[in-house]
Amino acid sequence: MAPTSSEKEGKVDVLIIGAGPAGLMTANWLSRLGVKTRIVDKRGTKIFNGQADGLQCRTLEIFDSFDFAQRVWRESNHMLEINLWNPDADGKLFRSDTIPDTIPNISRFQQVVLHQGRIERFFLDSIAEHSEIRVERGVMPESLEFDDSKAEDEDTYPIKIQLRHLSEEEATPKQSATSSNGAGIQDGLFRSNLTGDDTGDLLNTARLADKAGSTEIVEAKYVVGCDGAHSWVRNQLGYSLRGESTDFIWGVLDIIPITDFPDIRMRCAIHSVNSGSLMVIPRENKLVRLYIQLTTTDKLAGTKVDRSKINPDVILASAQRILHPYKLTYRYCDWWTAYQIGQRVGDNFSLRERVFLAGDAVHTHSPKAGQGMNVSMQDTYNLGWKLGAVINGYCDRSLLKTYQSERRRIAQDLIDFDHRFSRLFSGRPAKDVMDEEGISMAEFKDAFVKGNMFASGIAVDYGKSMIVAKEGSAEDQGDGTADVLGSAKREGAQSKPELATDIKLGTRMPSFKVLNQSDARPWHFQELLKSNGRWRLVVFAGDVLDPKQAERVQGLGNQLNKPSSFIRRYTSHSQSLDSVIEVLTVHSSPRKDVDVFDFPPIFRPFSATEGWDYGKICVDDESYHEGHGEAYKNYGIDPKAGCAVIIRPDQYVSWVGEMDDHEMMDRFFSGFMREQKESNAQTIDAPADMLGDGDDGKKVDSKAVDGAVMGGSADGAPL
Amino acid sequence: MAPTSSEKEGKVDVLIIGAGPAGLMTANWLSRLGVKTRIVDKRGTKIFNGQADGLQCRTLEIFDSFDFAQRVWRESNHMLEINLWNPDADGKLFRSDTIPDTIPNISRFQQVVLHQGRIERFFLDSIAEHSEIRVERGVMPESLEFDDSKAEDEDTYPIKIQLRHLSEEEATPKQSATSSNGAGIQDGLFRSNLTGDDTGDLLNTARLADKAGSTEIVEAKYVVGCDGAHSWVRNQLGYSLRGESTDFIWGVLDIIPITDFPDIRMRCAIHSVNSGSLMVIPRENKLVRLYIQLTTTDKLAGTKVDRSKINPDVILASAQRILHPYKLTYRYCDWWTAYQIGQRVGDNFSLRERVFLAGDAVHTHSPKAGQGMNVSMQDTYNLGWKLGAVINGYCDRSLLKTYQSERRRIAQDLIDFDHRFSRLFSGRPAKDVMDEEGISMAEFKDAFVKGNMFASGIAVDYGKSMIVAKEGSAEDQGDGTADVLGSAKREGAQSKPELATDIKLGTRMPSFKVLNQSDARPWHFQELLKSNGRWRLVVFAGDVLDPKQAERVQGLGNQLNKPSSFIRRYTSHSQSLDSVIEVLTVHSSPRKDVDVFDFPPIFRPFSATEGWDYGKICVDDESYHEGHGEAYKNYGIDPKAGCAVIIRPDQYVSWVGEMDDHEMMDRFFSGFMREQKESNAQTIDAPADMLGDGDDGKKVDSKAVDGAVMGGSADGAPL
Repeated sequence: MAPTSSEKEGKVDVLIIGAGPAGLMTANWLSRLGVKTRIVDKRGTKIFNGQADGLQCRTLEIFDSFDFAQRVWRESNHMLEINLWNPDADGKLFRSDTIPDTIPNISRFQQVVLHQGRIERFFLDSIAEHSEIRVERGVMPESLEFDDSKAEDEDTYPIKIQLRHLSEEEATPKQSATSSNGAGIQDGLFRSNLTGDDTGDLLNTARLADKAGSTEIVEAKYVVGCDGAHSWVRNQLGYSLRGESTDFIWGVLDIIPITDFPDIRMRCAIHSVNSGSLMVIPRENKLVRLYIQLTTTDKLAGTKVDRSKINPDVILASAQRILHPYKLTYRYCDWWTAYQIGQRVGDNFSLRERVFLAGDAVHTHSPKAGQGMNVSMQDTYNLGWKLGAVINGYCDRSLLKTYQSERRRIAQDLIDFDHRFSRLFSGRPAKDVMDEEGISMAEFKDAFVKGNMFASGIAVDYGKSMIVAKEGSAEDQGDGTADVLGSAKREGAQSKPELATDIKLGTRMPSFKVLNQSDARPWHFQELLKSNGRWRLVVFAGDVLDPKQAERVQGLGNQLNKPSSFIRRYTSHSQSLDSVIEVLTVHSSPRKDVDVFDFPPIFRPFSATEGWDYGKICVDDESYHEGHGEAYKNYGIDPKAGCAVIIRPDQYVSWVGEMDDHEMMDRFFSGFMREQKESNAQTIDAPADMLGDGDDGKKVDSKAVDGAVMGGSADGAPL
Repeated sequence: MAPTSSEKEGKVDVLIIGAGPAGLMTANWLSRLGVKTRIVDKRGTKIFNGQADGLQCRTLEIFDSFDFAQRVWRESNHMLEINLWNPDADGKLFRSDTIPDTIPNISRFQQVVLHQGRIERFFLDSIAEHSEIRVERGVMPESLEFDDSKAEDEDTYPIKIQLRHLSEEEATPKQSATSSNGAGIQDGLFRSNLTGDDTGDLLNTARLADKAGSTEIVEAKYVVGCDGAHSWVRNQLGYSLRGESTDFIWGVLDIIPITDFPDIRMRCAIHSVNSGSLMVIPRENKLVRLYIQLTTTDKLAGTKVDRSKINPDVILASAQRILHPYKLTYRYCDWWTAYQIGQRVGDNFSLRERVFLAGDAVHTHSPKAGQGMNVSMQDTYNLGWKLGAVINGYCDRSLLKTYQSERRRIAQDLIDFDHRFSRLFSGRPAKDVMDEEGISMAEFKDAFVKGNMFASGIAVDYGKSMIVAKEGSAEDQGDGTADVLGSAKREGAQSKPELATDIKLGTRMPSFKVLNQSDARPWHFQELLKSNGRWRLVVFAGDVLDPKQAERVQGLGNQLNKPSSFIRRYTSHSQSLDSVIEVLTVHSSPRKDVDVFDFPPIFRPFSATEGWDYGKICVDDESYHEGHGEAYKNYGIDPKAGCAVIIRPDQYVSWVGEMDDHEMMDRFFSGFMREQKESNAQTIDAPADMLGDGDDGKKVDSKAVDGAVMGGSADGAPL
């Protein structure tokens, strides 16, 4: 029986609750993967200033995989250096230490600061560019029903959610909850950071009125709760956050400072003798964010601080005391708040891998480390492609178990990091080595240096699972809860990590420059790993001028081209051959001595309208203007024999093995991928007549094949 | 008597005729300078494919000064290498030579290719972002009156132009003239390259109808004719283009090629034995442009080629003959045309410096060298800021004479280059050294290598004038026509070029990385030279840790801060002190040993709402992530003693002298700048109480000073 129109409209593959960074990242993934998605938020507009704003270099790498890192890079303030200021023997502040803010060479990006409203803007633009998905604002969930019996039946909609459309008044927060650990306090929500491209957003507010007061039922295959520290979805599931709060109270001021403190445009950690600590985070548009300690002891346990007495003047006065003898004032305050330090983490990240929680809904902590928004977005960067792969029928549902096993451990690491870091930050400096209540400034510096690697986001190392073929116990390396070796009962694939000593299984693929073989253009290798849902088989082909090595390469090409190959089995006949598993090649012979026609056709798939693909074969060679990436050396790969690497759609490394070990590659993918009913068995050799002179009759003008060109994004351009 | 409303509306400072790249560059400048401007074009829409598309690295530098180079850089195809293919002794094609496409290290950009429609899009967005100026399409000039008696009276409107608003039908070209030398031929104007952000443009077409058929009179202070090879403005002035045409006919195909030619993604020059030549220009979106010689002899002089017989099949067949034994075909053709080679240049570029001509209206040539659009945009990049400076009352009208003296010589150079290049390209390869009619392939390669510097746009070297203080004769170094030493009769300023041996007077300021003193961020120095109409006095302060040098720096600061200083005289009291002449500082002491408060206040101007300016003092030191720019070494400046450099608003170098030679700086600016009636004599020291703790009463919240923050562009962010 065909569904009626209204039933049909009420069904979605994924319903996302909450359109902050975690929710938007989910929607952004799904916009690329063709998944039927709705995203709702009870607020009437996106936010326009304040809130979280530090961006890890890993987050910028992820943004770049979605083609908008450059917008952040241009608008943001770049943080290059951390300066520690401490009292000298006479109690006078001096610059005691200097640390690079981002560890050199761990990423092609560095840590930057840009307020959350702009980041939401870039997500909204990106989603709109790739799909019909639009954030529905002023829409609040009211009830959730889950039919447990349908959980494992993939094509069902086991979740029913009732949504209520709010009036504009209801959707406008009177008092914004502005701290990430839930200690909300009134702030000044002036829309001063509003820029031109936000006007459409504000106009949409006016349209809220149309549906105000109405409700609707949505049936969903999956729900993702990205609804913050007070998560309604989490409450519906009966899950809770576990952890503790301290009584350290901190104030936050976003101001354009007027000061004679010389490091006001550097990230600074300033400890005063007795007046508490101050953190300086220079921001875009001349703004500086100051985190200012308001209580200098944790002996207040049990006593409630009178929050009504906290205001910008009180916070500024604290800052002035800490910064003495330097002077500080301002004429312009963009935003302010105060919060209490605490760390909590969720016990469960999903209900039967049907309803998921992400972001602040499962981990909250103090904002100073600049981690919260990053970890939240990275939660759903992990989840989004998995949801798409299951919904689109490429992978088994069991893949979804890896969301919790991978991300819950990261959340725990974050909470531990923040706990340690906050304590050091809120304590007063030790007077000397005998001062046991004071904080050793040497220990503080050490924590900062070590914390830097964690804070970059690059250190994330996912444990063994069906999609990370490494040694050890999946349970020990995950969050300890799930069986994530895969539904397939047979033996998992084995890696040979020694073939690429600097590519670490479970971490994101490092990036070095390689050249496109066909046009000599240098690319950071990561730029070829766009977030479009594709797995990558990277063939480090080694020295293809060596006849034996060339033979191995041809051998792999022949295997991959067979109708029985894993690429063809897992790709449907209606898709291009690179759309599920894409083969990328990096060889180490001199560029000039090789051309793409030396490689098997499946390494450069042929299209009847566009000819050979010139974007997939690269070389590790010197560029004209950007030096030599030395990729083989930096990856730790033998330039003669090469190797093969399987990379997940989120750029994390799954498997490393022999360059032509087709059997092991097959075993890896067979652990979780699904054979397509009508698989892609077409040849990719160019028909002989396509390259002849005598086929004028087949040519078509641009009008007729418009779609082919317009459909290609800028990324479709030759590499 | 106050003007009536209609009279008022009919008056503009500048009327631009033609909204191609030259016209848009003019409007773009004026959008930054607050000049009342209209820009009209008889076409109903901007163009959407085909046309010129090569972009010099200098053009990208200019785009970056307007903040949109990154859009081009991302969307374009980058050209890294030129390959020359020639017949071997047996007549078989082989890759005989390889040349880098852009000479390494001459610019931070390299030559790229992107079709003109996208470039026009970026201009339109840029203009809209900075002004109320909008291109008025379907508007054609019908008559021009010039009142010669008013020419030198600055506040008058000596030009009257009647404009006619066309109907949509009239504004839609039935046959597009597609060759840059006027040999128009029917093409396929399919709008296949149309992208999302062009839709607004198409909708505007529908609005043409409103005013269709009406006329209006516009009174203008200045008119800029950017209306192409058949310029109506040029015809009104009675000026003509002088030069010659050949009978070499070339075809152009923009296709997605299907081929086994291995260098199809490289720029290639291919000479066949007897079938003519072919040039390959790889483009964005998998397109390749092929320039294909259709006639192989110039012996046809006098005979007319039957153009009706030229079509894509004929052009493709020629390409296939030239490329043999490689095969070539296509399924998708985006655009095609054919043209006749010729070179012509205008005898006059302006009428009394009131009506100007630019772009194709004053120089036309063959398109293959990829120069036309670049030189056209650079014409008005030269003119725009001068118009703004005169209209805004900063500079004498005599400044405008330098437009012709500078640009007419460039046009002549271009024509000479193209003549030489085209002849070499259209000839058949010499069989041996005795083959006098053939072209020596060694000579061809030599021309390519030498042409590369010219083709980069970096070689432009403006002659001596009131705004270029160099040795020699202004007449010899200009176009031979104008007195461009300035209206001031006194002696011009003298440079000491030996103080910066690698900064060449009259050329654009080279760019190396320097660090912001306050936040350690690396910037290419050119990134600090945004096109906003400001002159720059760059103080290479040398080693400021040396007390004697520090004294010199303070001495200059004191001079510049006096009410009588040229900076204060030429800046009105209503403007910030850096808005006409901006002081930028680059010192050579270690960054860690210095802070901004070591420099005179005028080097870091104080604002009552935003405090000290942290964006103007830089250091030549090692960066954390991007190496050491070695600016002093690369500029050829003594790191102890430094020097001073005056840079024009278009980044060309005017003067080099002693770091503290205030008198000579003053003499330079006095040659053409105008004292402001109420000059800016305010102090820029911070009032003592601004930095105190006790001035809470003066603080304002964000609402009250919204404008101050919102008005700041992204560039306004800390350096």
